[in-house]
Amino acid sequence: MSVVTRIEPEILRRYRRACDYLAGAMIHLKDNFLLTEPLRPEHLKPRPLGHWGTCPGLTLVYAGLNRLVSKTGQRTLLITGPGHGAPAIHANLWLEGTHAEYDPALTLDGHGMAELIKRFSWPGGFPSHLSPEVPGVIHEGGELGYALATAFGAAFDDPRLLVACVVGDGEAETGPTAAAWHSPKFTGPGDGRVLPILHLNGYKIASPTIYEGMSDDELVAYFIGCGWTPLLVDVRGTDDPDTPLAEALTSAHGMTGKRPPMIVLRGTKGLGLPATDPGGTPLEGTFHAHQVPFPDALGDPDELAALERWLRSYRPEELFDADGVPQADLLAVPPAPELRLGRVPQANGGNLRRELPLPEVGKFALAVDRPGDRDASATEVLGGWLAELVRRAPRTFRVFCPDELESNKLGALLEVTRRQFEPEVPGYTEHLGTQGRVTEVLSEHLCQGWLQGYLLTGRHGLFPCYEAFVSIVDSMVNQYAKFLKMSGEVDWRTPVASLNYLLTSDGWRQEHNGYSHQGPGFINQMLTKKATTARVYLPPDANTLLETMHHCLSSTDLINVVVAGKQDGPQWLSPDEARAHCRAGAAIWPWASTSGPADVVLACAGTTPTVETLAATRLLADLAPDLRVRVVNVVDLLTLSPPDRHPHGMSAEAFTECFGEDLPVVFAFHGYPSAVHEVLHGRPGVHRFHVHGYLEEGTTTTPFALLADNRMTRHDLAADAVTRARGWSSTGGDLAGDLRRRRDALLTLSYRDGEDPAEITGWRWAR
Amino acid sequence: MSVVTRIEPEILRRYRRACDYLAGAMIHLKDNFLLTEPLRPEHLKPRPLGHWGTCPGLTLVYAGLNRLVSKTGQRTLLITGPGHGAPAIHANLWLEGTHAEYDPALTLDGHGMAELIKRFSWPGGFPSHLSPEVPGVIHEGGELGYALATAFGAAFDDPRLLVACVVGDGEAETGPTAAAWHSPKFTGPGDGRVLPILHLNGYKIASPTIYEGMSDDELVAYFIGCGWTPLLVDVRGTDDPDTPLAEALTSAHGMTGKRPPMIVLRGTKGLGLPATDPGGTPLEGTFHAHQVPFPDALGDPDELAALERWLRSYRPEELFDADGVPQADLLAVPPAPELRLGRVPQANGGNLRRELPLPEVGKFALAVDRPGDRDASATEVLGGWLAELVRRAPRTFRVFCPDELESNKLGALLEVTRRQFEPEVPGYTEHLGTQGRVTEVLSEHLCQGWLQGYLLTGRHGLFPCYEAFVSIVDSMVNQYAKFLKMSGEVDWRTPVASLNYLLTSDGWRQEHNGYSHQGPGFINQMLTKKATTARVYLPPDANTLLETMHHCLSSTDLINVVVAGKQDGPQWLSPDEARAHCRAGAAIWPWASTSGPADVVLACAGTTPTVETLAATRLLADLAPDLRVRVVNVVDLLTLSPPDRHPHGMSAEAFTECFGEDLPVVFAFHGYPSAVHEVLHGRPGVHRFHVHGYLEEGTTTTPFALLADNRMTRHDLAADAVTRARGWSSTGGDLAGDLRRRRDALLTLSYRDGEDPAEITGWRWAR
Repeated sequence: MSVVTRIEPEILRRYRRACDYLAGAMIHLKDNFLLTEPLRPEHLKPRPLGHWGTCPGLTLVYAGLNRLVSKTGQRTLLITGPGHGAPAIHANLWLEGTHAEYDPALTLDGHGMAELIKRFSWPGGFPSHLSPEVPGVIHEGGELGYALATAFGAAFDDPRLLVACVVGDGEAETGPTAAAWHSPKFTGPGDGRVLPILHLNGYKIASPTIYEGMSDDELVAYFIGCGWTPLLVDVRGTDDPDTPLAEALTSAHGMTGKRPPMIVLRGTKGLGLPATDPGGTPLEGTFHAHQVPFPDALGDPDELAALERWLRSYRPEELFDADGVPQADLLAVPPAPELRLGRVPQANGGNLRRELPLPEVGKFALAVDRPGDRDASATEVLGGWLAELVRRAPRTFRVFCPDELESNKLGALLEVTRRQFEPEVPGYTEHLGTQGRVTEVLSEHLCQGWLQGYLLTGRHGLFPCYEAFVSIVDSMVNQYAKFLKMSGEVDWRTPVASLNYLLTSDGWRQEHNGYSHQGPGFINQMLTKKATTARVYLPPDANTLLETMHHCLSSTDLINVVVAGKQDGPQWLSPDEARAHCRAGAAIWPWASTSGPADVVLACAGTTPTVETLAATRLLADLAPDLRVRVVNVVDLLTLSPPDRHPHGMSAEAFTECFGEDLPVVFAFHGYPSAVHEVLHGRPGVHRFHVHGYLEEGTTTTPFALLADNRMTRHDLAADAVTRARGWSSTGGDLAGDLRRRRDALLTLSYRDGEDPAEITGWRWAR
Repeated sequence: MSVVTRIEPEILRRYRRACDYLAGAMIHLKDNFLLTEPLRPEHLKPRPLGHWGTCPGLTLVYAGLNRLVSKTGQRTLLITGPGHGAPAIHANLWLEGTHAEYDPALTLDGHGMAELIKRFSWPGGFPSHLSPEVPGVIHEGGELGYALATAFGAAFDDPRLLVACVVGDGEAETGPTAAAWHSPKFTGPGDGRVLPILHLNGYKIASPTIYEGMSDDELVAYFIGCGWTPLLVDVRGTDDPDTPLAEALTSAHGMTGKRPPMIVLRGTKGLGLPATDPGGTPLEGTFHAHQVPFPDALGDPDELAALERWLRSYRPEELFDADGVPQADLLAVPPAPELRLGRVPQANGGNLRRELPLPEVGKFALAVDRPGDRDASATEVLGGWLAELVRRAPRTFRVFCPDELESNKLGALLEVTRRQFEPEVPGYTEHLGTQGRVTEVLSEHLCQGWLQGYLLTGRHGLFPCYEAFVSIVDSMVNQYAKFLKMSGEVDWRTPVASLNYLLTSDGWRQEHNGYSHQGPGFINQMLTKKATTARVYLPPDANTLLETMHHCLSSTDLINVVVAGKQDGPQWLSPDEARAHCRAGAAIWPWASTSGPADVVLACAGTTPTVETLAATRLLADLAPDLRVRVVNVVDLLTLSPPDRHPHGMSAEAFTECFGEDLPVVFAFHGYPSAVHEVLHGRPGVHRFHVHGYLEEGTTTTPFALLADNRMTRHDLAADAVTRARGWSSTGGDLAGDLRRRRDALLTLSYRDGEDPAEITGWRWAR
């Protein structure tokens, strides 16, 4: 400790001066980078961008971590919650030489400095926030709330890693962050450590923060309550903030035991700015320091002068030589190259990713001799396969789930692993342990954040979720999709495992939990994503689910949404048929179709719509034996898109083969009908697709009544078929009326008995 | 206090026995409700539904609140987070006579009891969760996480109200709940009080909860840290839980000062069940008590016998007479009728709602003599109008916003009111106060939850939000839309004020904050809602924004999404024109169109697309003077829908008047193109609509470059127009090439200079 306090402060102060100068220059300058001339308007960026307020604090932390890493050799990943403090991170990455390594133009001299400063927030250059273009980064920090969960995700199963995570006190107001403080309860001895640093500089954009409104006693109590050992470091007003922070970091690093350390770093917002701007508005230490310090410098000579005074206050001439090369003492601050924060291998997880040892699905697939002649739970079958996967991949595959694993029929996993939960609880439990492949928490935000961190550091995972509640992470998925899209455009980033959702307990069988549990909108959400990012699968039975999940878990850089049933239901395809069907993505089911040309296509996508469609064909076979019906099942929703709009889009020929040129199509769809219309956009003759789906009608009722309320029963589909079918317009109407009357009669029985009549529940489809 | 402890426990115990019996019966029975006969399979519901685990605790709280209300006369609203504990609430509502009041069939006798028990979780009856059908309820509790924020929303500006809020320890794991514990920092002396009761029974569906993993010391520390005075009440193992809870409630009610009380109620999950089921699985006090206690009673004689033993353990014959009328002592437990929890007027807020004293927009509207000849910030103009509204409605209108009010140019509000924030902070602040109409917190979840509670109790509000980040509340909006839809089907519920979003800082002008800040998907999200619920407006300038917001703030039972610009931009319509245009929803702008028949329609919706479209007409006037162009502007997106799909859909005649029969339409849209295709679905000839929109291409760049990356510049629109226009296929190609080359040349300048060239930024449209 004595070494720390006696020798280094001056160098660290100079190091931070250099970083702060560079950060300020990045925000404001496009020329005269070393201030070798008086500052003139033509040296200024026309649109100064960047958030200064958090920068000095970020550099203080970065420098402190540098020292810790140098002393201890601790491999460290930094997650920066305040991603808009990007200038500070860039400055550190440049000074430590990481930038030059990833981009030869960013040399450690005046040329490289000029390039760095000019590129920041410049069209075609670096964005104003952190992003995949930046080495060492797995978290963007543009939308606030997810840094801490991501940090924990990165730490799972990497026991030698330290993940330092800066959480701004603005971000700390968000719900996802508030939940994430409890994450240590879900980590165990096989995991790395997370060191959160609450960067408490008091203000968000225009107001004090919640945490600024808490006393020191409250802060300590809060974090003790969450299970941490809080270390308060108040560097306001000190000339030497490095030493107290170093002491806290060293102390934190040395701690063992159940209450891990976290640091509350109280600092001055925008440290280093003048007390006020030329107009008298307070700057340093207030929210006015949040963004660009001197936004009007280009047109206001007083601001220009103030900007110059401020930048010169860092005395760049003492920090860089005439060629812009940093002085030797500054270059000695970062750790050895392989330990530098920007070079942490975990931040380019694709390089660490190993293919999962996926079991062959054959051993787990169901024998299906005749379509529909046996019942099974698709997710239960999948559970067996996942259990084998967990056996084979005990350190690189995890399941994050909101407390619903068994409810979703994936309980087989718990025969081979445990739910990871650290606290000892006195009461009765099952399948808990301090290590395990399953983490269950009633927070979709945590599941998503943990999984993102886990995937981006080179591992694999699955997020099973009640379909209706996955929308809780809509915005996180938005941001993750953007991260993936940008990563794909960065040549040194290598592919990471896809983010896989298994949406089950779907709306059609949440008739018992009621309306709140019925919501298939996540499919629509995925359809707003780039075609290079999003996939939507609706396997109708166990074997197609196995094939689909095998495919998804082998894929990279995608977001795969798989919607599957958990209730016992009819099985349609043999293992071989399932493989072929999943490869096609959508295909005619000849065994369910009449032979020869068709009068109408009955298309279906999703477990329940497939059952109803097949049942409709039976009704039609009885009531309209002359009607020629073709059944098309769609597993991969995006095969419906034109191939020029989505890479999975089937060819025009294949599309015509399935749906004809001008045949009417009665389409039974799992989700909102609009999703089908959307993927069909650009195909010819879309007006002939008549889509049945969820019409946002629901309550606690019976399965049949829920279908009836949304016009999705077999009777509705059959009625639609006979009225739409080619050549049936004259006779179809009466039949349709009969069918709808039958539906209503059955509905009456459901209401009377509180359960669906045997005609529905006892139904079995067989060839 | 002595009265409480000496006299009442026995009656309260009997009261709770009655409620617990009724709740258990609701889950299992469809007949033999008083167990006057031996229990036989035909007495059982075929599909037993409902969550027992939380019911005894909910009744304990309900009974405790009854007592508090009786003693103090305190008007109390109960928010039940564990909405799946509905049977308990129904039992209490029936016993206190509220049910009979709202529905004459639910009399306080055997007939009413039979009806209540049978209706629960029965098709056409009461849902398995709380819902708008249930008196006293403003919170469903199906999707967990939002009870506490809703409770605070209900308490704002209602200083005589106590809002008791039960938070399950499962729900407490969610981020939104974790954030909401800080809500007292945003309440002031003009607001009612919220008394949270953390119902800590240790388990979620299959595991111990986070809070079960915390020691008493940690629990106390955590809530002290959040600013509460925690009162621990552990009723596990006691015969008399009522007394300690009553003491805590009385003590809480008497507390004043800055650290409000909250109660941690440690209880036994599923209290009253046998220790194990017939198969030996533990029940009482474990997660196995979470849902239906005896799910297989219908087919398993041992379970049937166990169910009968359990139900008989409540000795219903001592609680109800032979006709099912509750004994008199039970009927004496609830407070006087007007104070009963189920009758709290705030839970049917429409009855309390008063129309807002909306200012006329005329005084605030901009004079626009010629379209495009002046610039203004639409939200800044709106800010003036909102400030006047706040002056007129100092107690019934609030603005909840994620720390971006000034950034969104609504700062005028802060000239007439303050940001409500309770803690005293030592540093520099502006516009803070312990009372104010504006609440800013960096949590969209809190803004949404607070606003929902505020609206449902009869008040009005606005939620301004960065467009990209409103998706954080996607799932909350899903649930709120369901609540509104169901409320509309309940005859005694009266309309509440609409939920109004003002989405600004939109993606097209987040070129500085970059890709993470660009996301217009909330529009798509709204399009999945019932046509009776959702509205989407895209006013293109200040006067149309004023008209739109005036309309939205006068409306009821809707979710209105208004997307508007904040940057200075051209103003198109005079106040009178704006009013007429907003009434039409979409209309031809004749002054921007060539006269006579058109070769092509240029349609636009949204601030930036409107500017680019108008600019495109100028390019076309120069480059293709013979091209006949019609400009259509769309303010109300849903006017595009066919009238049989949405009530705002314009008539077929009006649609043809705007878009012709078969004219090509180049549509510049603010959001994802899919949203336009979706609303157009069902209109004839949709293939002729060529939609430009956000293609999910973005970074930190210039406004023009962002448009170019998404093919949305004036040049792209004009190029599309000349290639699509009727009769222009032969000549249009060359022109389009010229236009795209011009775009690329301008783009090069943007990249070179770091700002858009004067040709773009200096552009001005004039008639």
